[in-house]
Amino acid sequence: MAEKIEKAVLVGLGAMGLGMARCLRKAGIPTTGVDIVAERLEALGDPVSSSAGAACEGADLLILVVVNANQVEDLLFGAENCAARLAPGATVMVCSTVPPSYSQDLGRRLSEMGLLHLDSPISGGNVRADEGTITIMASGSQAAFDKCEAAMEAMAGNVFRFGEESGPGSSMKLVNQVLTGVNLCAAAEAMSLAAKLGLDLQQVYDVITTSAANSFMFENRMPNVIAGDTHPRSAVEIFVKDLGIVTDTAREQRFPAPLSAAALQQYLAAAGIGLGRCDDSTVARVYASLSDVKLPGMDN
Amino acid sequence: MAEKIEKAVLVGLGAMGLGMARCLRKAGIPTTGVDIVAERLEALGDPVSSSAGAACEGADLLILVVVNANQVEDLLFGAENCAARLAPGATVMVCSTVPPSYSQDLGRRLSEMGLLHLDSPISGGNVRADEGTITIMASGSQAAFDKCEAAMEAMAGNVFRFGEESGPGSSMKLVNQVLTGVNLCAAAEAMSLAAKLGLDLQQVYDVITTSAANSFMFENRMPNVIAGDTHPRSAVEIFVKDLGIVTDTAREQRFPAPLSAAALQQYLAAAGIGLGRCDDSTVARVYASLSDVKLPGMDN
Repeated sequence: MAEKIEKAVLVGLGAMGLGMARCLRKAGIPTTGVDIVAERLEALGDPVSSSAGAACEGADLLILVVVNANQVEDLLFGAENCAARLAPGATVMVCSTVPPSYSQDLGRRLSEMGLLHLDSPISGGNVRADEGTITIMASGSQAAFDKCEAAMEAMAGNVFRFGEESGPGSSMKLVNQVLTGVNLCAAAEAMSLAAKLGLDLQQVYDVITTSAANSFMFENRMPNVIAGDTHPRSAVEIFVKDLGIVTDTAREQRFPAPLSAAALQQYLAAAGIGLGRCDDSTVARVYASLSDVKLPGMDN
Repeated sequence: MAEKIEKAVLVGLGAMGLGMARCLRKAGIPTTGVDIVAERLEALGDPVSSSAGAACEGADLLILVVVNANQVEDLLFGAENCAARLAPGATVMVCSTVPPSYSQDLGRRLSEMGLLHLDSPISGGNVRADEGTITIMASGSQAAFDKCEAAMEAMAGNVFRFGEESGPGSSMKLVNQVLTGVNLCAAAEAMSLAAKLGLDLQQVYDVITTSAANSFMFENRMPNVIAGDTHPRSAVEIFVKDLGIVTDTAREQRFPAPLSAAALQQYLAAAGIGLGRCDDSTVARVYASLSDVKLPGMDN
């Protein structure tokens, strides 16, 4: 049963976090926004803070929408020491993509401090974050779910539950990223090969999107390749990070993952040639650069 | 403008060819079916022949739905010598998946004999072949298109045209197979990793098919993995063949294709452990075999 939230703090007002914080407020949940970038605080409006530790004093729900496990760790146990400053029995909802083994360990440590943990990675992109229709893949105790219920209802279109422990939510997110990362890289490989073979890329798009070869990532990202548009909807560096976690976890598990590993190398190469902050579809330019192909918008 | 077809011969009454031959007859196109397997001839019914060369005597349209370029070559120029036995000016419609460079060469040779060539690979599977709604990716001269128009209308739901030369139709098919082959292998990698991480596979399916991670191949094939069903809708050996053509062509073109190459190794491994004639989704068992995971239906 949903518990009342007295004071929520959301840290990380980036592409996803800003829309999520707005959705919380719209649902009447008192929410303080935290970021280190002043423009992001202005975009949300009061109450905001540039100090996560100060904001966490007495809060009963902390939602972390930061970029990786290092930032989660720093915020909770580093200089800001958020974990120690939360109200007794507060819940920490971690929406970042982190290794399942980290999430398990974090759940144990928070529990030893008398805090609840919801392992709750998100997907959906900034448009759905603004609409309050993201997907949340969550695992954790019933008490943690009860505490987060109203917040998840405000932010999400779908909430999938993966049991009582910390870890499975993050495992599900990794499985998701295997597919988004590899399917997009496959789309880049196919489109660049099509260009090399002299096919018209718009016609290829029209054939593939009506065929068994289609994927969400192909259909969603390849228009950017055809238009030569490198503006980041989601950046190459996100897949460098997420497929890094996939391959680290696969290695821990003694699970050979050749496609994830090969795709990671292609995103790394994209970052290596200066495209890290460009749209993730620019991974196609790695293929083009290595095969004397010009894709739309490429000057050299 | 559509030309009348006096006598069509369709060689290769397998999963696709049988349905295609029936659709031709239903549309009133006089069609002789050819195969070396007696049961397939019986399945179609007269007029049929076990000799392609004899059937081709005086035919004005030859449709090849055989497995690869070697069989195309043998039928046209080997012992059966079909090319020489067709009516003067006849059209050869090659629906097999072949290298674009082979198709270019074939078009030139047929032209030198006064024959027309339509480079016209197909996709869609046996259900759509039965319904007459396959996809045809075709290139060739206007005269070849005119000759094949009524036949394509009878067999296909979509006909995409890629210009006047032999080659681009086969190029488009290869691009398609990069995506079907890699997307399916990615689905297998993701599902097996999910099993290794202890997630419920049906729940994973429900999450992925509503997320940006979805692909046609994931949605269509993973129910077979969850059910432990190895019955071939399309066999592992098809991707061994088609990704082999992809990587051969990419090598010819000096186009590095790391995902296609890695996926090919996984299908090869599936064939290597005895799954060549099983459903292509059994490539997931390669991952399971190498990581101490049991997928549904696996005994050891």
